[in-house]
Amino acid sequence: MLILTSPVNIRYFSDVELETYERFAALLICGSRRVFVVPKLEEGRVPGPAYVYSDGEDPAEALRRAAQECGGGEVEVDGRTTLRAWEVVRRALGGISTYKIADEYIDGLRAVKRSDEVERIAKAAQAIREAIAEAYAGLSPGVPERKAAADIYLRLVERGLRPGPILVQFGENTALPHQGPTGRRLREGDVVVIDVTAAYEGYYADITRTFAFRGEPPGFREIYTAVSEAQAAAIAAARPGVQAGDVDRAARSALM
Amino acid sequence: MLILTSPVNIRYFSDVELETYERFAALLICGSRRVFVVPKLEEGRVPGPAYVYSDGEDPAEALRRAAQECGGGEVEVDGRTTLRAWEVVRRALGGISTYKIADEYIDGLRAVKRSDEVERIAKAAQAIREAIAEAYAGLSPGVPERKAAADIYLRLVERGLRPGPILVQFGENTALPHQGPTGRRLREGDVVVIDVTAAYEGYYADITRTFAFRGEPPGFREIYTAVSEAQAAAIAAARPGVQAGDVDRAARSALM
Repeated sequence: MLILTSPVNIRYFSDVELETYERFAALLICGSRRVFVVPKLEEGRVPGPAYVYSDGEDPAEALRRAAQECGGGEVEVDGRTTLRAWEVVRRALGGISTYKIADEYIDGLRAVKRSDEVERIAKAAQAIREAIAEAYAGLSPGVPERKAAADIYLRLVERGLRPGPILVQFGENTALPHQGPTGRRLREGDVVVIDVTAAYEGYYADITRTFAFRGEPPGFREIYTAVSEAQAAAIAAARPGVQAGDVDRAARSALM
Repeated sequence: MLILTSPVNIRYFSDVELETYERFAALLICGSRRVFVVPKLEEGRVPGPAYVYSDGEDPAEALRRAAQECGGGEVEVDGRTTLRAWEVVRRALGGISTYKIADEYIDGLRAVKRSDEVERIAKAAQAIREAIAEAYAGLSPGVPERKAAADIYLRLVERGLRPGPILVQFGENTALPHQGPTGRRLREGDVVVIDVTAAYEGYYADITRTFAFRGEPPGFREIYTAVSEAQAAAIAAARPGVQAGDVDRAARSALM
């Protein structure tokens, strides 16, 4: 019996978006069966069979009934389960203390994307790529970072994406990783860094682009080219079976 | 010894923003001492003393050294700790299996806001209030929901907030809770619902406003007034020592 409690893993195994915040929720998987345990107010969001509990009730009782329906067997648990949720599981299963963290199994599955996952990531990436390109093309001197970020926000929402952080940095601000957009206005010869994360149907893409706006500052071309070549070397090194460290080394080697 | 591993609780006790994703991080509190355990690449983000580990190293070793500096005593753990992180704690502390989940203590502290927390929440709330009011005042027929959402985004970023979900719904879309902005264009006589979450220095406010745009549809005034009175009754009932359920009941009673 595999017990999943984290929204990301529940979504992966069921395609159900279930964020219950402080309330306990779980998806039990036993063979080909899937059984949900959810707060009463989330009942409509999950396909049956579902065991529900109200605010005054102990979720462990609902989980106990769900586990009976699911049958016994070794308990494997989502490693993203919090200790708070784990206490509910322990109460439900009669104080068990032996369990196996299933992350190797879960992460192994999740590392290989299904075609529908690839499509959603590709859709997110394409939309971000277009939003950045269009926003950049529309930039003119005097525009503050914030206005450019809002323009990207609009273009993402138009494409059906759910925007995460949108970073736009001009000139000296490009030296500050992950600083949010400020009132700094664009000048000719500024470096422009745009870093956007957004999701399409729960699947994220995260793209950063660097530009020189109407004129390159001294040294820009050399650094840009070196980083671009390192990125190309990393992409060329990334093939099935290759370790992440090897891809990293390919990028670093290109910079030496 | 109190062991905190969740970003929200680490932030609460240290004001340090530390989101390490899959990597282990902890803040140990023992008496007046605070000791961090962080991945090497986050070292610069925390004040000393900090125990660091590199990617090839076991974080449990760093945590073991931190715990020695912290002294012994009963182990109390952040209930938001994941089983994955808990395995690191168990390895570090020699396979301990007895611990106390400190959530009652932590949540009790966090339920009472310090003045600096109140200020940050008030700042977030005030900025959202202004952003919604200005955006609403700027609406004209034909504007799509997405454009209105982008306008609010800009006004939030201008005020130094980090926007979360921004929902703008016109007409029939107001019946769909939490639906993101679409291409639906504003018409006279539409109900407009704007629901905005955003954070100022890590502290969130979440405000929803309902308007009737240039003319109220039939029944709108009655429903709006009833909900508004229920909200006023809830606010009037909220006083120190009152239970949340009593506030809820005050709102519901006003609607009967």
